[in-house]
Amino acid sequence: MKLDTLLKPDSIALIGASRDPEKVGHKIFKNIVDSGYGGSLHPVNPKADEVLGHRAYPSVLEIPGEIDLAVICIPAKAVPSVARECGRKGVKSLVVISAGFSEVGRGGTDLERELVEICREYGMRMQGPNCLGIIDVQSKMNASFASTRPPIGNVAFVSQSGALGSTILNWALQKDVGFTTFVSLGNEADLTAADFIDALAEDDHTRVIALYVEGVKDGKRFLDVASRVTRKKPIIALKAGTTDVGMRAVSSHTGSLAGSDTAFTAAFRRAGIIRVETLEELFNLILAFEGQPLPKSRNVLIVTNGGGPGILAADACEKMDLDLPLLERHLIEDLRKRLPPQASVHNPLDVLGDADENRYRLAMEAGMQSRSVDSMVVVLTPQAMTPVDDIAQAVVEVSDSYDSKPVMAVFMGIDEDSPGLCSIRSRDIPNYLYPEQAALVLNSMCEYTSMLERPQQEREEIEGLDRGSAADILREARDDGRVNLTIVESIRLARAYGIPVPRAAIAKSAQEAGELAEKIGYPVVMKIVSPEIIHKTDLGGVMLDVGSREDVERNYERMTKRIRVAMPDAKIEGMLVQRMYPSGREVIVGAVRDPQFGPLLMFGLGGIYVNFLRDVSYGLSPLTRIQAREMVNATKAYTLLRGVRGEPSSDIDAIVDVMVRLSRLMTDFDEVMEMEINPLFAYEQDCLAVDVRVTISEEKDKEE
Amino acid sequence: MKLDTLLKPDSIALIGASRDPEKVGHKIFKNIVDSGYGGSLHPVNPKADEVLGHRAYPSVLEIPGEIDLAVICIPAKAVPSVARECGRKGVKSLVVISAGFSEVGRGGTDLERELVEICREYGMRMQGPNCLGIIDVQSKMNASFASTRPPIGNVAFVSQSGALGSTILNWALQKDVGFTTFVSLGNEADLTAADFIDALAEDDHTRVIALYVEGVKDGKRFLDVASRVTRKKPIIALKAGTTDVGMRAVSSHTGSLAGSDTAFTAAFRRAGIIRVETLEELFNLILAFEGQPLPKSRNVLIVTNGGGPGILAADACEKMDLDLPLLERHLIEDLRKRLPPQASVHNPLDVLGDADENRYRLAMEAGMQSRSVDSMVVVLTPQAMTPVDDIAQAVVEVSDSYDSKPVMAVFMGIDEDSPGLCSIRSRDIPNYLYPEQAALVLNSMCEYTSMLERPQQEREEIEGLDRGSAADILREARDDGRVNLTIVESIRLARAYGIPVPRAAIAKSAQEAGELAEKIGYPVVMKIVSPEIIHKTDLGGVMLDVGSREDVERNYERMTKRIRVAMPDAKIEGMLVQRMYPSGREVIVGAVRDPQFGPLLMFGLGGIYVNFLRDVSYGLSPLTRIQAREMVNATKAYTLLRGVRGEPSSDIDAIVDVMVRLSRLMTDFDEVMEMEINPLFAYEQDCLAVDVRVTISEEKDKEE
Repeated sequence: MKLDTLLKPDSIALIGASRDPEKVGHKIFKNIVDSGYGGSLHPVNPKADEVLGHRAYPSVLEIPGEIDLAVICIPAKAVPSVARECGRKGVKSLVVISAGFSEVGRGGTDLERELVEICREYGMRMQGPNCLGIIDVQSKMNASFASTRPPIGNVAFVSQSGALGSTILNWALQKDVGFTTFVSLGNEADLTAADFIDALAEDDHTRVIALYVEGVKDGKRFLDVASRVTRKKPIIALKAGTTDVGMRAVSSHTGSLAGSDTAFTAAFRRAGIIRVETLEELFNLILAFEGQPLPKSRNVLIVTNGGGPGILAADACEKMDLDLPLLERHLIEDLRKRLPPQASVHNPLDVLGDADENRYRLAMEAGMQSRSVDSMVVVLTPQAMTPVDDIAQAVVEVSDSYDSKPVMAVFMGIDEDSPGLCSIRSRDIPNYLYPEQAALVLNSMCEYTSMLERPQQEREEIEGLDRGSAADILREARDDGRVNLTIVESIRLARAYGIPVPRAAIAKSAQEAGELAEKIGYPVVMKIVSPEIIHKTDLGGVMLDVGSREDVERNYERMTKRIRVAMPDAKIEGMLVQRMYPSGREVIVGAVRDPQFGPLLMFGLGGIYVNFLRDVSYGLSPLTRIQAREMVNATKAYTLLRGVRGEPSSDIDAIVDVMVRLSRLMTDFDEVMEMEINPLFAYEQDCLAVDVRVTISEEKDKEE
Repeated sequence: MKLDTLLKPDSIALIGASRDPEKVGHKIFKNIVDSGYGGSLHPVNPKADEVLGHRAYPSVLEIPGEIDLAVICIPAKAVPSVARECGRKGVKSLVVISAGFSEVGRGGTDLERELVEICREYGMRMQGPNCLGIIDVQSKMNASFASTRPPIGNVAFVSQSGALGSTILNWALQKDVGFTTFVSLGNEADLTAADFIDALAEDDHTRVIALYVEGVKDGKRFLDVASRVTRKKPIIALKAGTTDVGMRAVSSHTGSLAGSDTAFTAAFRRAGIIRVETLEELFNLILAFEGQPLPKSRNVLIVTNGGGPGILAADACEKMDLDLPLLERHLIEDLRKRLPPQASVHNPLDVLGDADENRYRLAMEAGMQSRSVDSMVVVLTPQAMTPVDDIAQAVVEVSDSYDSKPVMAVFMGIDEDSPGLCSIRSRDIPNYLYPEQAALVLNSMCEYTSMLERPQQEREEIEGLDRGSAADILREARDDGRVNLTIVESIRLARAYGIPVPRAAIAKSAQEAGELAEKIGYPVVMKIVSPEIIHKTDLGGVMLDVGSREDVERNYERMTKRIRVAMPDAKIEGMLVQRMYPSGREVIVGAVRDPQFGPLLMFGLGGIYVNFLRDVSYGLSPLTRIQAREMVNATKAYTLLRGVRGEPSSDIDAIVDVMVRLSRLMTDFDEVMEMEINPLFAYEQDCLAVDVRVTISEEKDKEE
């Protein structure tokens, strides 16, 4: 396993171990001792002979034997020299608890950089600085200043917030959720979330990885690691700082970089990470993923002893797009015989207010035997004679004897410490306070199942890419020091990557315009090309539907004259002559380069609606055809493209092709910062990038 | 107070009181006894001399003295005769626990009707049948079969689901939430939710009314009562059966009618009812409304001892459109002096991980003194040395000394039974497990405040309504036995109510068409009028932009000939000649008649987008201009109407005027079932109802 010397060290030195119970250096040392750590443990404290009965050393260098892990909690300024001593001693890993690094600004950033350089020099890996520490429950090591010891189990928690650590650990204790590892990331100067995820993926005890992040340090590596790991075990992530205000808080509170939330959403989706919106959701999902099998479909059976709660559960399932199928006829008939006549054998299956454990058992067994049902939500409300504990026992037994379908309990208004709920919890059946929580969790499990079932499409071959021409176009613009490509360059760039564009060229004279039009074919559109003129139409700088050479030449003269009168200082570079095509349904395809995750593609409804409807979807590059198709399907524009009111559908494959080509272009050329096609005309057959804009980076590539 | 003999009876007869502890009739009697009920209590049981030490009577008729309330729990079939005895005895109110009425189908419905007639005959009011009973905590009466006794307090709970009753009561116990009254509505054969809300509005102890409903019995009365009551105290409602599946469950599980959810949403908004989506939200809102003052604005101060939790809280506030203003400069400077230098004095205000009660007190006092802050979310995570109980005490004290701003505590991962949380709860400060809950609650409180502040607009005078003409048009169609008005009738109806419509009439001959066109003015649109022809355009039955009398007459002949060839059997009633107007932005204004709540108006984006974008909003009739304007503002179409990309804005006042007039028309004429204007062209000045469709009811009004 990776990071072994950090997560499961054979020997620990605690540098800054203190005898003063108020000090962090004492608390952590005590926690390591109290947790039952079985390796060798050495306090380092030049002012003490012993700490809590362990012989103390003035320096790490004086400890006899090898040291796997040094935990450092001394003032920030002293950390580099101590780290250097650790390096000389041959220490493998560091956990730097001390604060006062990049999170406090300039001076701290320098100190942090020095510290990282020392780690590199000596080949040490470092967690932190500015972290709460690490707990590895399996190896009985609590090297953190949280005194709560979570029970042993299958959940690993990696958190960018130390403050949430204690909340998470207390919650685990309350809900009997067992942990393998708890990691407080701190400033991630060396080891990042990706490194820990990578290591935990190989830990057989860890079944679920939970993550609290505000930003990620290396987007691409994070994506690579997470994409691989989610195929093996679920990663559930709470990303904070999602909103503007939240992001302000991120930058003022931690040294971490908050990524754009859109890119995060796309990245998490791409990596198969299950994203939650709240801490509550995070906890609720952990409960289910940790102990329950994955559902094979979205078909849920609700069992309830009350009409109202059954309706609430049905509403909640419906909102989550879960299905409530009826049972097979023979199961229904069997239940009809064995349940009281007033019971409802539909779905929700209502076993009535006076139901005992036998009725619940009958209902649940029918659900387990049914081929139309793949998960169950068992709702209970305490009524006059409800034998709660016996029913809990029945839930556990049925769940145990058929272990292939997930079961969610919703025992409402029952004391958490009742024997029934304790027994349900001890068998890893999640119990939720409200049916909405169970529905939300089931939906997430279904989405994870779908993700696992989705074929992993390899990067596909795209034909007709003229990389050389594209590079030439870009080089020329950059040699000129321009960041915006001209319309003709933009169209040529798109064409080089096989994106259908209008036939167009720039003419410098009336005669040239006429000749061009003859080559391009009529009708044509003519547009003044001038960097100073933004609103071409207002100034008469655009002519549509020009049908003959004669008209083209006449218009050239007339339009240039008109502009010279209206804007005498405007530099007229010529006239764009472009074939005029019939209009199609207008969509937009664009790409920007996210600093964390690279090219981010966008698809949506185009034209005047793009701004106010914001009907767009996003996906990260490299985009496969399947992913591009999913982006299209995720928009309302999709309904329009399929044809409303019996109109014929548009060529969605052609749009998908444009998206995939644009994605490849962004991947191939780092210098393209933004590229947008708006509108892209969608036709019954084929599509056309009517207007293309390209922005490139100011600096040259390092390679060139 | 209304319903006094039910909620606070001086004497109770329990008909069906049993000596068998397994029977409901025993359980309820015991609950009344155990609850400490102080009035006179008489069991009725022909087979027993006494029940639990109280002398039993064979019939209610033999009990000496007056009886305010009879609680009935005997088999359904025997209920009517017993009710009749109650009537003869002069009993004022009944609570019928017994099931077996309308909820079991036909036979039960007849029995229920009989029961209601008996109540009417003797002037008795009845709760139920098929209910859990009633608890009035103030008068120490638990006449229900729920054995949980909620603490005394300020919350009244009215529930259509008996099964949820025990869940609600247990929750109240766990969270120390005090109740005034708990009512299980049952089938609402006589007394409905509206009756209880009406009564509870007058109860001074009741500060919050909570409601669980699946449908309402009399929509208009419910609206009237609730609209009045919400001005005095908040009503928080959970409406179940919101989705299709949910609604199926409603109809199969209870005798209640599930209203269309859209109408419910509009009705709740109109009545000022705070609608929640889940039981959890319901409980969370009760906690705050019951004990905290209303916030004067959306400006929230977050106080936290951890960065991560602060960000989560900030995210949650932002999502709820709450604002996080900075404190005034003098307060910031004061805090800078008194808090450690690393503390963040922005918002979230981070008092750091080692914060004690004094730092929290400083931060909260600054918030209380600030004029830019009107509520506070106090976040605490337990860290190494966090003195949780002392901080809780500080929260209570600051909150007590400045009682004008609501305070929400979010003490995360703290044991509910810790002294700190107990003291917070006992002062009616809500504590939430997660910051998202506090934000959601604050948002609801702000919305309630806005509702209270919104001027109550009286039904306004609308000029230019020609009620007589409208009535004539409708009468004519109904006399013909038609449910669809012709296009000309529809246009005339709209015009009678002052809605701008195109000039149009039907011609029966080419010459008539020519004469009409001369009157109407050119250009005109001509459309074949034939009930058999749906797709007029496909058959050449529509001509646009006809510019002269000559063309009109020629087109008349040509179009009728073409149709006769294409569809020889189609009856041609003539030709619509309509003035052709320039096209505007297309919106839709429509109305349907909801069976529960009456006319429901719709506004949205029109044209081809109406179907796939579903960008629409709803509001109940009668609609004031303010309400109509709010409906427009709630759509994305509003952004379009205001003008995108610098285009001029449309005449929204004119659209609002059309909405108000359509609303009035629907209110004035019950026989209009649906009326839709699509598209309504919106211009810079004015608007035009280009196409109008009207459907009327099949049966004649009873009045006529």
